[in-house]
Amino acid sequence: MVKRLMFEKPLGMRDTLPFFYRQKAKARKQLSEAILSYGYSFMDTPLMEYHETVGRVSATLDQQLFKLLDQQGHTLVLRPDMTAPIARVAASQLKESEYPLRLAYDGPVFRAQQTEGGKPAQFEQVGTELIGDHSAYADAEIIALLVESLQQTGLDDFVITVGHIGYVKAFFSDVLGDDEETIETLLHYLYRKNYVGYREAVKTLPVIEDKKQALLQLLSLRGGEEIFEASRSLARNQSCMQAVNELKQLHRFLKQYGVENYIHFDLNLISHMDYYTGILFEGYAPHLGALLCNGGRYDTLLPSFQLNASATGFAVHLERLVEALNELEDEDERIGIIVDDDSFAKGMTKARELRRQGHAVLLQHIDQIPDVIAFQRDLNQTFNYTRAGGELNE
Amino acid sequence: MVKRLMFEKPLGMRDTLPFFYRQKAKARKQLSEAILSYGYSFMDTPLMEYHETVGRVSATLDQQLFKLLDQQGHTLVLRPDMTAPIARVAASQLKESEYPLRLAYDGPVFRAQQTEGGKPAQFEQVGTELIGDHSAYADAEIIALLVESLQQTGLDDFVITVGHIGYVKAFFSDVLGDDEETIETLLHYLYRKNYVGYREAVKTLPVIEDKKQALLQLLSLRGGEEIFEASRSLARNQSCMQAVNELKQLHRFLKQYGVENYIHFDLNLISHMDYYTGILFEGYAPHLGALLCNGGRYDTLLPSFQLNASATGFAVHLERLVEALNELEDEDERIGIIVDDDSFAKGMTKARELRRQGHAVLLQHIDQIPDVIAFQRDLNQTFNYTRAGGELNE
Repeated sequence: MVKRLMFEKPLGMRDTLPFFYRQKAKARKQLSEAILSYGYSFMDTPLMEYHETVGRVSATLDQQLFKLLDQQGHTLVLRPDMTAPIARVAASQLKESEYPLRLAYDGPVFRAQQTEGGKPAQFEQVGTELIGDHSAYADAEIIALLVESLQQTGLDDFVITVGHIGYVKAFFSDVLGDDEETIETLLHYLYRKNYVGYREAVKTLPVIEDKKQALLQLLSLRGGEEIFEASRSLARNQSCMQAVNELKQLHRFLKQYGVENYIHFDLNLISHMDYYTGILFEGYAPHLGALLCNGGRYDTLLPSFQLNASATGFAVHLERLVEALNELEDEDERIGIIVDDDSFAKGMTKARELRRQGHAVLLQHIDQIPDVIAFQRDLNQTFNYTRAGGELNE
Repeated sequence: MVKRLMFEKPLGMRDTLPFFYRQKAKARKQLSEAILSYGYSFMDTPLMEYHETVGRVSATLDQQLFKLLDQQGHTLVLRPDMTAPIARVAASQLKESEYPLRLAYDGPVFRAQQTEGGKPAQFEQVGTELIGDHSAYADAEIIALLVESLQQTGLDDFVITVGHIGYVKAFFSDVLGDDEETIETLLHYLYRKNYVGYREAVKTLPVIEDKKQALLQLLSLRGGEEIFEASRSLARNQSCMQAVNELKQLHRFLKQYGVENYIHFDLNLISHMDYYTGILFEGYAPHLGALLCNGGRYDTLLPSFQLNASATGFAVHLERLVEALNELEDEDERIGIIVDDDSFAKGMTKARELRRQGHAVLLQHIDQIPDVIAFQRDLNQTFNYTRAGGELNE
């Protein structure tokens, strides 16, 4: 085996240096404050779970699970998301709590990476779960809270795209009957957002022209509330109508929340092949090139923990949010005081006073500074440490 | 293999429910504020490292490392502490920063557990590293900051026991010469705080009575500054004198910081067999039955990352701190507003207003509450949700 250099890290693992740490801490705090203001309670679960339990029912594809063997030979997973672990807790320790349950989380999650230089294998998610409320009020609350949380961080330019998995699936059943294979193929194209592939696939289908036209028209069901009418005429079956009515109701509530300008509807949206069961959504910010946040309604996860409840929630990818915010300004404003043996006591008194006033004060003995010239300060005088070469923005 | 129940968690892994989460978040915030006020910069490192690199040089005993195999067959460790990963970063990405470096961290660390029902395999450490300052000023700053951080959380009844590994080792060399085996044996007794075993071992040593008496007197070197004189007369060699002088200087600085009432000296203190190289300390709170915090000076870790620098730091075990604080009062003060279809818009306006005033407000549609009687509230009236059966303190 190749000998590792002392500085090497496992595949996809990254360090968070002080500048980025501060940006993350700030965004995390702002998201959390918004979430708390809606009456959600934060909780946490361990970093590792059994593959057989939480790993198996999580929304993450099996090949993306970060699997490991413990010393007893059990397969463990580093938690790939927080939804399945929270479902485990909701269905056990919190089973007797007042429902609906409003829970929130903030912590690292993991995705196995197969190649060097790819995506991070560990990233931080801040999110919510609203368990036991299957109404559109709950969907609206989750989406409104997501918008307000993002606004709270100072992000303004973003879009939440909302779809309904019930619509797509019922529409495909209506047009293609029980041809599961074709349905699966078309769903996959939509899941990968490969609309060119979808069109090509539809063209070669052995179905009548009207059906092909309908399948192609599905792609146009994107936009504002004006798509509801078109959505209803395209698919006249009961399930599709119900889905459209849920979206209409959702839209009305989101207007009441005053967040409708951030909302975009897209009836082609398939965030996951078989996890979501109703309204679902994805959030994007320009220039980010990756999903900022996502979520939706899942009704089959809790029953796998023997809890008969529907739930909805969102998760924000914190590092990507920080990238989207792209704040170059660093709020690191430390004051420095350099002392020698004689001025130590006086410097310390001064430092204590400034700390009481809320300042971050670095008290440093001159003999231990290798590069005194970089500072060029008189003893016992305060100075802006961060502007005097003390930055940690590497 | 036995089939797992859906609710099972890996050995030593625990959930953090809302009540405990709030207590932890509060203590974490208070510790962090104190640490930031001293000009320390928080940073983070990944949860996993290679066993060959960070794992091998960490202060944690190999059998306590949580080792795992990744899909490529490499041995990884879940980070057992933050000191070694921070040393890795200090010696690489932060190599060109202004020294001394003041870094801080807050995150989960791991210890493998061999049995069910034992200690947690994952716990949270909040701590600091002061890198590149080998003076007693740095040791004093770290200890004073530790005391102030703990005070900040409201903890008042605690003791920081300070020792000096240089003293013990030089004293043993002086008395026992190059009898490494005996020295190792005696160090182990002290490390395990097995003073009875130490006494027994000393009695059977094939050395003259004077030496036995000296070895036994070592155990009495505990207390306030009055022990410095006794320590100096017990071991008259140069290294012991230097260690005592460092402790005296440290004591003088700690008095200037005004934290001397929390300090207790103990020249038998051996926190680790071969990690610390100078002043070291452990913190205890009554009734806790376990270490609350610890730290000290380590001079050999950074050189293993090719950085010639001395460092000192502390780590606080956050969950144990919360236990020591033993706060039964929960600061969860959520307001509830129950609405129906007609009062939803009005309820939302009220909720928004209260949220703007800084309250946590839970807006809930009545149709989704299974146990409405538990609340017994009029529609659209605010009420104290947490007192109305909505607690999450399980």
